[in-house]
Amino acid sequence: MDILDIIDKKEKEERLTKEELKFVIDGYLNGSIKDYQMSALLTEIDLLGLSEEETIDLTDIMLKSGEVLDLGFENATDKHSTGGVGDKTTIVLAPLVASLGVKVAKMSGRGLGHTGGTIDKLESIKGFQTSMSLEDFKAQVNKINIALVGQMGNLVPADKKIYALRDVTGTVDSIPLIASSIMSKKLASGASNIVIDLKVGRGALVDNLKEAKELANLMVKIGKKNNKNTACILTNMDEPLGYAVGNSLEVIEAINTLKGNGPKDLTNVVIILGTQMVSMGLNIPQEEALEKVKENLYNNKGYQKMLEWIKAQGGDITNIPVAKHSKIIFSPQDGYISEINALEIGKLSRKLGAGRLTKDDKIDLTVGLVLNHKVGDYVKKGENLLTVFYNEKEVSETEVLSCYKFSENLVEKPKLIIDIIK
Amino acid sequence: MDILDIIDKKEKEERLTKEELKFVIDGYLNGSIKDYQMSALLTEIDLLGLSEEETIDLTDIMLKSGEVLDLGFENATDKHSTGGVGDKTTIVLAPLVASLGVKVAKMSGRGLGHTGGTIDKLESIKGFQTSMSLEDFKAQVNKINIALVGQMGNLVPADKKIYALRDVTGTVDSIPLIASSIMSKKLASGASNIVIDLKVGRGALVDNLKEAKELANLMVKIGKKNNKNTACILTNMDEPLGYAVGNSLEVIEAINTLKGNGPKDLTNVVIILGTQMVSMGLNIPQEEALEKVKENLYNNKGYQKMLEWIKAQGGDITNIPVAKHSKIIFSPQDGYISEINALEIGKLSRKLGAGRLTKDDKIDLTVGLVLNHKVGDYVKKGENLLTVFYNEKEVSETEVLSCYKFSENLVEKPKLIIDIIK
Repeated sequence: MDILDIIDKKEKEERLTKEELKFVIDGYLNGSIKDYQMSALLTEIDLLGLSEEETIDLTDIMLKSGEVLDLGFENATDKHSTGGVGDKTTIVLAPLVASLGVKVAKMSGRGLGHTGGTIDKLESIKGFQTSMSLEDFKAQVNKINIALVGQMGNLVPADKKIYALRDVTGTVDSIPLIASSIMSKKLASGASNIVIDLKVGRGALVDNLKEAKELANLMVKIGKKNNKNTACILTNMDEPLGYAVGNSLEVIEAINTLKGNGPKDLTNVVIILGTQMVSMGLNIPQEEALEKVKENLYNNKGYQKMLEWIKAQGGDITNIPVAKHSKIIFSPQDGYISEINALEIGKLSRKLGAGRLTKDDKIDLTVGLVLNHKVGDYVKKGENLLTVFYNEKEVSETEVLSCYKFSENLVEKPKLIIDIIK
Repeated sequence: MDILDIIDKKEKEERLTKEELKFVIDGYLNGSIKDYQMSALLTEIDLLGLSEEETIDLTDIMLKSGEVLDLGFENATDKHSTGGVGDKTTIVLAPLVASLGVKVAKMSGRGLGHTGGTIDKLESIKGFQTSMSLEDFKAQVNKINIALVGQMGNLVPADKKIYALRDVTGTVDSIPLIASSIMSKKLASGASNIVIDLKVGRGALVDNLKEAKELANLMVKIGKKNNKNTACILTNMDEPLGYAVGNSLEVIEAINTLKGNGPKDLTNVVIILGTQMVSMGLNIPQEEALEKVKENLYNNKGYQKMLEWIKAQGGDITNIPVAKHSKIIFSPQDGYISEINALEIGKLSRKLGAGRLTKDDKIDLTVGLVLNHKVGDYVKKGENLLTVFYNEKEVSETEVLSCYKFSENLVEKPKLIIDIIK
């Protein structure tokens, strides 16, 4: 077997066998296949696609390139978000479903580019530990149903190396490559049930509905092939989710949401995702799961579980720092807000220091932006549109306002839950 | 400008501007664009193509990436072959047209893979010098109308670097990339007239007629755009050209051809290409050029010019070494020869030591194979099919016979000259 023959075969759009895909992944990991050759094959895949069978094969090979965790629980339930702006869903959702008896043994990532990461957000809580041994991790889940840490063990090394290359060769937007990347990591994490929040829109990895549906169907198929219950919820990411964008600001909003005082859109996403997780995790009908989720969101049990969880990982929930300075940006006109560009808001948050351009950048956990209104709201000139929380780095009024569009006519609230595919 | 934006633009099949193409070539040469990024873009070009305008722009940028020779002659005429097995055409053609007053200031290459190179072949002549200063090169052409050397100066460094990458990333077969590679080198060499022998078939770079015509049309357009007379002759390369394959063996066949005793196919290719070169180089009609070429092929003037040329470059034509051992392969049956696989014969020649797998391999200039019959010939069982000339490395009878196919029915001689595009 020879990488040039495989590149040639793919060019002719012939199906690559599992042996050939394994030869590629093994060769790339051991260095016998070079970056520029892998880049050629990834570009072909980006342009010509991969069949469902090839994608399932590729995912399996990537999964087996490293450690596969054995959690030791029968029915652990995992949740993944493809990444958005203001997306603090996990911090609300994980303790909420854990309070209903669902086992949540979750690894999360850090933010990169214009999107944030759950681990960064949790680290804004004083004392919160985001790493522990696998033993302690399992013990905590056994005891209180929930543990949430950063990446553990040598899971899916193939994805790490391939993702880094995709990032610099224009191949991040390939549907089969996204599917195999996400699913290999989820499968390696050992949960039996997988719920994926697939963000669609300007601030998301996938910006059109057709591709989002294709990706969702593909991930559900890969999950089923691996005997995992898998559901994909397509949610809108044209404007930020909730009001807060920035690490500690988002944690505060998550706490308020678990107290029953959250933004409507965030609360809805939590309820929909929570229903799937509880239905799978407790093996009960959707309707029953929905009732239970709503109950624990408003009877404070979800909030109590959050307190227990944060404490178990060493965090002090009464001590969440916020940036020293703040300034309010006022509406320049009367009108309905017709657009708040999630991508641009994400970039402003990063500019304030809340996000990273490269993995090694240091971030400021206390800065960010808090919206006062969402798309569809009517505002009067001079009304509070958004508050900027900042330390050293600032953003200008012009920069903030360029994220907004207004309309004289009534603007409907965007549809938040686009589709559920399972 | 950013390489990722350019990769993205190409993925969307938008036209790349000349500025963008220049950014790519400059960046790749100065190292700011990496191999894996160039590989992604080349793979996109291989799969999606380039427009005629983009190819013309790319060729111009590559051409200007290095030195462009000024030969100082009004009407120098160059010839290029896309490479075949047994292709000693240049060694016959160059002195033949020079004997008619055409100025031939030619740079040639070395063999790689299953095809040979003119410079290697000429070096099998004792004493023949394949390098000289540009001054001496021009002076020799001025004096005797012909000089032939290896690559001189820093011509088209972009092609050198890109070709090396294409070779290891499965992108050698892209028509616009072949066209820009060949034409940038020809344009940099400074001749006013360009005749290209485009080999088509099993032993050639391009194996199907449709792509060959596309490539020919593209090269002719690039030539015209640069104010050069350009003609492409499509010739068959399913079986080796002539009888001899191997460096010194081919030189001997070339000498015999200039004495009027050459193989019919080689002689025909020389006449057709020579007619184009003489018509362009002397600015006379085709019919007149054809008469002149035939005349000097059979009146020994072409041969006399060869002697003068070889001597001018220090060579001793009476001293051409041949391998120590030879063995004859006999026909295993009666019948018409229906196939002699040029690609496989080329590989056997390389196996004997006549060719290189990598640029650094040392080669044996004296070994090779000499056919005794061509496709369409009738042979009897036990008749001499082919003679192997070898030193240390051998090839087996089975290996040789696997290049052959026989038929009980009459087999027509293949059509040698497929098309002339200009």
